[in-house]
Amino acid sequence: MTALDEAIRGVRPTDVEAANAARKRQALLTKPAGSLGTLERLHVQLAAIQRTSLPEICRPAVLVVAADHGVADDNVSAYPKQVTGEMARNFADGGAAINVLAADAGARLLVADLGVDWQDRTPPSEIVRLPVGAGTANLALRPAMSRHQARASLTAGIDLAARLVAEGADLIALGEMGIGNTTASAAMIAVLAGRPPRDVTGLGTGIDADRWEHKVAVVERALARAKPHADDPVGVLAEVGGFEIGALAGAMIGGAADGVPIVLDGLIVGAAALLAVALCPAVRPYLIASHRSVEPGHRIVLELLELEPMMDLGLRLGEGSGAAIALHLIRLACRLPREMATFDEAGVSRQADESALSTRSRP
Amino acid sequence: MTALDEAIRGVRPTDVEAANAARKRQALLTKPAGSLGTLERLHVQLAAIQRTSLPEICRPAVLVVAADHGVADDNVSAYPKQVTGEMARNFADGGAAINVLAADAGARLLVADLGVDWQDRTPPSEIVRLPVGAGTANLALRPAMSRHQARASLTAGIDLAARLVAEGADLIALGEMGIGNTTASAAMIAVLAGRPPRDVTGLGTGIDADRWEHKVAVVERALARAKPHADDPVGVLAEVGGFEIGALAGAMIGGAADGVPIVLDGLIVGAAALLAVALCPAVRPYLIASHRSVEPGHRIVLELLELEPMMDLGLRLGEGSGAAIALHLIRLACRLPREMATFDEAGVSRQADESALSTRSRP
Repeated sequence: MTALDEAIRGVRPTDVEAANAARKRQALLTKPAGSLGTLERLHVQLAAIQRTSLPEICRPAVLVVAADHGVADDNVSAYPKQVTGEMARNFADGGAAINVLAADAGARLLVADLGVDWQDRTPPSEIVRLPVGAGTANLALRPAMSRHQARASLTAGIDLAARLVAEGADLIALGEMGIGNTTASAAMIAVLAGRPPRDVTGLGTGIDADRWEHKVAVVERALARAKPHADDPVGVLAEVGGFEIGALAGAMIGGAADGVPIVLDGLIVGAAALLAVALCPAVRPYLIASHRSVEPGHRIVLELLELEPMMDLGLRLGEGSGAAIALHLIRLACRLPREMATFDEAGVSRQADESALSTRSRP
Repeated sequence: MTALDEAIRGVRPTDVEAANAARKRQALLTKPAGSLGTLERLHVQLAAIQRTSLPEICRPAVLVVAADHGVADDNVSAYPKQVTGEMARNFADGGAAINVLAADAGARLLVADLGVDWQDRTPPSEIVRLPVGAGTANLALRPAMSRHQARASLTAGIDLAARLVAEGADLIALGEMGIGNTTASAAMIAVLAGRPPRDVTGLGTGIDADRWEHKVAVVERALARAKPHADDPVGVLAEVGGFEIGALAGAMIGGAADGVPIVLDGLIVGAAALLAVALCPAVRPYLIASHRSVEPGHRIVLELLELEPMMDLGLRLGEGSGAAIALHLIRLACRLPREMATFDEAGVSRQADESALSTRSRP
């Protein structure tokens, strides 16, 4: 049995009884039932994952995976390809948005290289190196990677999650860096969600209308060439994916197998989530959506996975930025049911008409 | 000149040059231009308010104002009227959601009584008492308060903001408590936004469909009785408002006059914001929207004030809960431009095609 098969089999259903106990706790707290909205749902979800009515996140980790994409040579991004390595170095030096956001959330930041094309520069020693290659091939022209590489990237992600959990992480927030990776993600989402490339392709780092048309055409060409099938997720990753996308999906499966919640970011992590759930549907209850990005493909991913994002910040940065920001809300979702008084403790009167509890819909 | 007139005249335009300097700073940071979305807009807004390119929030305060409503006797809420005082006591004892949320955000919490009906119980000493009365009259039957009381509640809010700023607060997040106050807010929004009661009346703490129809009828009756005019904001407050709503509007005007940003919460604070802006349009640039609540009237307020909320958490609690949660995002909006590296510092390549910067719209 491969490491991937083993991780897939290792993902347990979350704990229904702990979820029910969490719901009961919520009903006792001094607030109208359901009035904390998503924070109550998060509490219940985290209770189910941690198998306790009062879950707690003490050591969150942010995992950022970087890799290069052959399609970046095809004029699909506003930035040149070397920015992948330059930004990975920026992560190592502490100068990127994700460094500030992870520090503010009290999260450990791990940066992994799954296939950055460093050219003649030395990779920073702070980066964990698990390269599957020096970037993918141009998916418009040929398979981005071999099936062997696709499996290797998934396995590397499982290893990264295991490493974080072994070091004490009780939650993994995911991010990525890879010039060209919104193109690969759009192609993967088009296949896995069964949508035309035009619907799932966005402006990425900020391209103009002409380049957007070109980007759509590149995705269309890739799909016409490869004809990937949604029922062969590893094949989809190999044909039109990226090393970091495979690793992110692997980290989701590995993290879920290790029983820790996984916080998603934007489009690319979303594409990885579709892949992870296609490979292992049991992963879905471990996933937490952080924000809704401006990328149209991201909205489609969230709808398909029935995930409700907590924030609408108009982000389109990647790096795990939205996931790291959401750590504050996740901490609050755990803290509120631990620290709030109950109606009895506070001597607060309950609802005059308890039947109102069951009626929520507006006429 | 009254204290209200003085505060209204004291609200200065925010600083355009500081805003431009903040925008310039954003363009240098190692990320695609605009990719931090709302956090970039927030940085620019806070720069304009604090009149510096690198604003900072060091001592945020949460101000929760409580008062009772005569209309609560009219079967419009899921909770009995005495819950206002019971929850105010819960705030004083530290057991409510806002206590946890303010503490987590490192914010000072000030609870003020603008007119709680304490009946035969002693108000907690932790609560600042500025009562304008022991609750309003039933707005369906008669004016909620006199014009004198309306002005007194606005002035009390100005005093509360001044007190917080004098004690060092550099931001004021607003919240409220008052059984029946979603009914008063709906009535005020109907007048100030020029919308039918049916469009702006929600389920409040969680009422059923029948009681919602009754609540709409109560608002309709109040407006038919009082015929308040949007061009007489103090009259609207007097006829169909609440003491805490007047104080919240006063705190916005006073806070803006003192040059501090004001963070809004949900429906009731939104109604107060409409009132504040009607009295003093210069207040608008000082307002920050935190979340979009499930109340339909809140959405209308946000649209009318052209405020974009940061979070979509399905909250309907009040107390300033959404505003307190947003303090984390506001802190991040200040921290990112201070701590992120610039392209030059990090040696990261800029966009290949700078013209892409100016083209954001999707074809």
